[in-house]
Amino acid sequence: MIEFPDLSRLVRPESVALIGASDTPGSIGKLTVDNLVEASEFRGRVHLVNPRRREIGGRVCHPDVAALPEAPDVAVVCIPAAGVLDALRQCAAKGVRFAIVLTSGFSETGEAGRALQEEMRGIARTSGMRIYGPNCPGLTNLADRIGMTFSPAFADDRTSGPLGIATQGGGLGRNILQSGVRGSGAALWASLGNAVDLDVADFVHHMAADPAIRVIVTLFEGIRDGARLLAALRAAAEAGKPVVTLKVGHSAYGERAVQSHTAAMAGSAAVNSAVLAQLGVVEVRDTDELVDVAWLLARATPPARTRVALFGASGGALSLAADLVGSADLEPAELADDTRASLRADLPAFAAVDNPVDTTATTISEPGLFDRALRTVAGDPGVDLVLMPIPLDYAERSATSSRAIAAAQEQTDVPIVPVWMSDRRGPGWQVLADASFCSPRSLTKAVLAVRRWAEYGRWRAAAEAHPPAVPLLLRADEPGTVAALPAVDTEPRAKAWLSAAGVPVPDGEVVQSAPAARAAAERLGCPVVVKIVSSELPHKSDVGGVAVDVGSGAAAEDAWRQVTEHVALKAPHAATGGVLVERMVPADGVEMIVGVHRDPVFGHLLTVGAGGVLVELLDDVQRRLLPVGRPQAEEMVAALRCHALLTGARGRPACDVDGFVDLLVAVSDLVVAHAHQIEEIDLNPVRVRPADGDEARVVVLDALVTVASDGPRDC
Amino acid sequence: MIEFPDLSRLVRPESVALIGASDTPGSIGKLTVDNLVEASEFRGRVHLVNPRRREIGGRVCHPDVAALPEAPDVAVVCIPAAGVLDALRQCAAKGVRFAIVLTSGFSETGEAGRALQEEMRGIARTSGMRIYGPNCPGLTNLADRIGMTFSPAFADDRTSGPLGIATQGGGLGRNILQSGVRGSGAALWASLGNAVDLDVADFVHHMAADPAIRVIVTLFEGIRDGARLLAALRAAAEAGKPVVTLKVGHSAYGERAVQSHTAAMAGSAAVNSAVLAQLGVVEVRDTDELVDVAWLLARATPPARTRVALFGASGGALSLAADLVGSADLEPAELADDTRASLRADLPAFAAVDNPVDTTATTISEPGLFDRALRTVAGDPGVDLVLMPIPLDYAERSATSSRAIAAAQEQTDVPIVPVWMSDRRGPGWQVLADASFCSPRSLTKAVLAVRRWAEYGRWRAAAEAHPPAVPLLLRADEPGTVAALPAVDTEPRAKAWLSAAGVPVPDGEVVQSAPAARAAAERLGCPVVVKIVSSELPHKSDVGGVAVDVGSGAAAEDAWRQVTEHVALKAPHAATGGVLVERMVPADGVEMIVGVHRDPVFGHLLTVGAGGVLVELLDDVQRRLLPVGRPQAEEMVAALRCHALLTGARGRPACDVDGFVDLLVAVSDLVVAHAHQIEEIDLNPVRVRPADGDEARVVVLDALVTVASDGPRDC
Repeated sequence: MIEFPDLSRLVRPESVALIGASDTPGSIGKLTVDNLVEASEFRGRVHLVNPRRREIGGRVCHPDVAALPEAPDVAVVCIPAAGVLDALRQCAAKGVRFAIVLTSGFSETGEAGRALQEEMRGIARTSGMRIYGPNCPGLTNLADRIGMTFSPAFADDRTSGPLGIATQGGGLGRNILQSGVRGSGAALWASLGNAVDLDVADFVHHMAADPAIRVIVTLFEGIRDGARLLAALRAAAEAGKPVVTLKVGHSAYGERAVQSHTAAMAGSAAVNSAVLAQLGVVEVRDTDELVDVAWLLARATPPARTRVALFGASGGALSLAADLVGSADLEPAELADDTRASLRADLPAFAAVDNPVDTTATTISEPGLFDRALRTVAGDPGVDLVLMPIPLDYAERSATSSRAIAAAQEQTDVPIVPVWMSDRRGPGWQVLADASFCSPRSLTKAVLAVRRWAEYGRWRAAAEAHPPAVPLLLRADEPGTVAALPAVDTEPRAKAWLSAAGVPVPDGEVVQSAPAARAAAERLGCPVVVKIVSSELPHKSDVGGVAVDVGSGAAAEDAWRQVTEHVALKAPHAATGGVLVERMVPADGVEMIVGVHRDPVFGHLLTVGAGGVLVELLDDVQRRLLPVGRPQAEEMVAALRCHALLTGARGRPACDVDGFVDLLVAVSDLVVAHAHQIEEIDLNPVRVRPADGDEARVVVLDALVTVASDGPRDC
Repeated sequence: MIEFPDLSRLVRPESVALIGASDTPGSIGKLTVDNLVEASEFRGRVHLVNPRRREIGGRVCHPDVAALPEAPDVAVVCIPAAGVLDALRQCAAKGVRFAIVLTSGFSETGEAGRALQEEMRGIARTSGMRIYGPNCPGLTNLADRIGMTFSPAFADDRTSGPLGIATQGGGLGRNILQSGVRGSGAALWASLGNAVDLDVADFVHHMAADPAIRVIVTLFEGIRDGARLLAALRAAAEAGKPVVTLKVGHSAYGERAVQSHTAAMAGSAAVNSAVLAQLGVVEVRDTDELVDVAWLLARATPPARTRVALFGASGGALSLAADLVGSADLEPAELADDTRASLRADLPAFAAVDNPVDTTATTISEPGLFDRALRTVAGDPGVDLVLMPIPLDYAERSATSSRAIAAAQEQTDVPIVPVWMSDRRGPGWQVLADASFCSPRSLTKAVLAVRRWAEYGRWRAAAEAHPPAVPLLLRADEPGTVAALPAVDTEPRAKAWLSAAGVPVPDGEVVQSAPAARAAAERLGCPVVVKIVSSELPHKSDVGGVAVDVGSGAAAEDAWRQVTEHVALKAPHAATGGVLVERMVPADGVEMIVGVHRDPVFGHLLTVGAGGVLVELLDDVQRRLLPVGRPQAEEMVAALRCHALLTGARGRPACDVDGFVDLLVAVSDLVVAHAHQIEEIDLNPVRVRPADGDEARVVVLDALVTVASDGPRDC
């Protein structure tokens, strides 16, 4: 069971000590004092610590932490790196609950800094005092207006609202905060820097329970502890709070930059994205996208199905918007007859009263009419969201339109999304910002936000219908019987194990001589496949260890000789265990790949994809954390691009998709039963054949299982 | 030969008449007078026409056009629709060169309006007076500051610069103009409304020769005359001026919206995009993207290869930028040893001196150091562009950084692209706008602009190496021998024609009896394919008209009977011409599709793509206007995703790509020789087999040719 700390006294302390308080203009110490004392509305007790001052700004200054009149909830440390560890030890001794270390000069600076940071971690571990930072701008509580930060920008970032922001770096986090000028607002920003102890996951968990927060925004470069993150994200999901994430590391250049910047591994972007998507986390690629979708989620919870109406006064902008909405696979709303009749009665004769609704430019100067039409559209029961492209700043006239939009929004729960497309921020822009619309910066970005909002709605509905299982990684500590794993080190042994669990494999026998191969071929029925058996040769074909389409018993005898001779020649030192003779499976249907691997961060994942030539051409794989039940397995298969091949498009026969889903669930069950031992399973290929009555039409043609005790494989 | 009008007296008139001039506040007539007389710097002669006024604002008012003291270069018409045609006839009689019709109420309003507009077109055709509009905001010459427009926004849009903008609609066009506030500038904006006579193509052609314009920006919904557009785009390319385009119609919803808005067909987005790309036109999906890339192209001409350096003071923003640059397939610059040494000497110890160059936040307060490092990076000979993410507004400190950036840009031709990522526009944003950086609105958009800039550089280099051929559509009027086209109405005839032109087809014979089929199979060698011959059955398999893998002469005799019986049963009225017996081609290599069709807008295009199951899974086609020469054909094949299959990835044999390119060129040559007759060619499939010495390894397995006289086919 993963434990999370209670951070409420860190976020809303009753007493704060500033260690390194100063009155030197421009110093970190002075900036921090000013933020907490001047720019905050902090009603608790503030204690200043500085051995070289008696008082600062009329407040008494204590020489050290020991001299403080109480053990404060939080100590903010902004002294030079050399003195930090000593100060932290004093804090721990005093009984301080939380230390926020602003100071730089730790793991980000090299070997010596890393050693200091390890010592810092030790102080947290042994004392129980939790440490935030180091190398960070501090903690910004906007809901209660408490700034435990040196940032001179704190005084300006005043818009409070329902976002909770947890980041590693500072620059991008403040970028999110500065979206307040277009109408967003945050309750809390935790910028954790090197995160020696408290991490993004701790704040996600805190925010899941914080009533001031409706949407959680995270921004990180590396994931150190997958289990904690999973547990925190599940807490957010259980609290019904969407999590929006920007994670770097989707390209080699990006991964290199992250390593040079934080010495953290970005991890596999494909795995991260799959895991995040599975948990309903909305992943974005830029900070403006993060704000757009987080704010839209904060404004309204998306339904299971999102039907979009377009509304505006510029036909060109509406056409462009329709094009982008269509290209994003969003569903255009079908307006009701009543709605169209009402619009027809209200709007000028040349207005378009279908979706898109084009009120025409003449209505810009008739706000009452514009307003009424907008309410009519938003009130249509078939409309889930109204997107309004505003292509240009028309000065006061735009402000009037913006006021009409704000008034219409007050009458409906259907989100109205005005998109201020112009670079000129006239009074109309300001009206929208003041009304907290947080208008996206461009139409493409707006459509992207709506798409992500709609996808979250779909995820939420699916998660309600089929509540997601607890990931295997989080079950690691649960008691339970672990089934004994038989030897699975060779293909026939792996297949026997799979077969016993109900996973279909070809009929076959292991033989030790050419005549035995002939007899086996004759018993099994030709054609057969003949393969070398060896736990040391995972890639049998590369050493000539496979003969396919062997048409007779005599040919099987030849194949036995050929295969054993090739392997003896090309891999003379490999231990072999005879030859596997298998009934050959016809090459019809679709070749698939099924795999399980233990990701170093998130634990076991199941991967399903198209096999054969499609592997290179389509990046057509679906990944899920284990366990995978039937609904999830069905969803994985349906999400593949090659799904059309499996279901029999363009006159091809439909394949045994049900049987394939059974196989995925069986593999998941097997791994769950043997999670401590299984490192990797490769079923490649799996042939999914045209469905034909009751016969098993899914066959695992090759299987490779790696168990933990095997050690690293050389392939 | 396509003729374009000389628009110089329209853009820079010496005399302008305003028909419908008014002094009624808020009227279109008054707004137009005010724009030309007050807000413009027009030094020519202005004549006002209004029968109900003697004078307006101290200027004499003429009762009608006939009464004018001269024939003005331009007449701006802003009277109600009912009087427009009469006024235009008067203008034509007077000898006016150009009429700009602002008035609405024509084709956009329905049947009656369309009829009026047709009459208007007739006036232009018969008189030679060229008409601009109707239903448009007018013409805005920013370079010379002449506003022939009613738009009240004209007075505000003052930033002049090297962009030339030609649009149909008004709203999106002015959106582009309003990007002036972030530092762009335009010389001319033509907003053509219904474009009854003068069209976007006329202005593209004008802008290609206008020395005030360096980059042409177009924005349109439908393409009416492909030949004129192609000719205009070629003129722009010859003048070395990039063209950037936003075209709607990429989705069904978008196409519907365009039709309802303009009654124009959007045309096939896939064809449009392919044609535009072939001509080097940079296609974008949003107006902000249009501004971003157009301005970058105006700032600097991209080289054949673009190596990007990232530079900034925020490690997090640089990591994100690197991730996006890498994901966009842009090439990161490799900094020279000298550069790194110099940065190491100048920057703080913890700065990153590799690409990305992270000067660290401490340098924000040391502008001299920041400036020097930036110059060092921009001066590296291996750097073609410097991208600078600026995540947050740091008030005056950001302004200082922005000034350093502007100063560094003055020292180098390598474009420096600062990206102001924050929503807060502090003084640093204004410094960048004033220095004409036109900073993109977000990092993703900036990376997109750089990618498009780099792609244009590659196109330009390729076009210099292999100058593009004149499209077949533009050669339509050229004299030349048109080769006689033999009958190609059946598969064997089409194949015979192709074969004579050097396109390889299987050996085969047409036979009229079962015994003849046996004899043919024995002569050709088995296995063979047996197919019905009929010009009325383009889809032979659907009526049982094909037997494959026929293994012997006797089987061929059976196949003859089976095929003819099936067809007699399923298509009893189809005229048949015997049965084709062909040597069967082994199913190795890769199945491709080659097609030619005559697009209604752009003429003949060649399409190449992956065949078989890949058709559904990959949208893997390349399209080019004919003619296609060897370099273009090679480029088409190399651009396919299935190229990896053809060249033999993952241990598969390399296929005969050269032979396939030969086939494409031969097909292009055939169509060029018979352009007036050929409507469509379908070679599906074409088997491209593993290369093997000199033998022909590319074979057209099925061929269907449609000629103009065939009339519409029922399939």
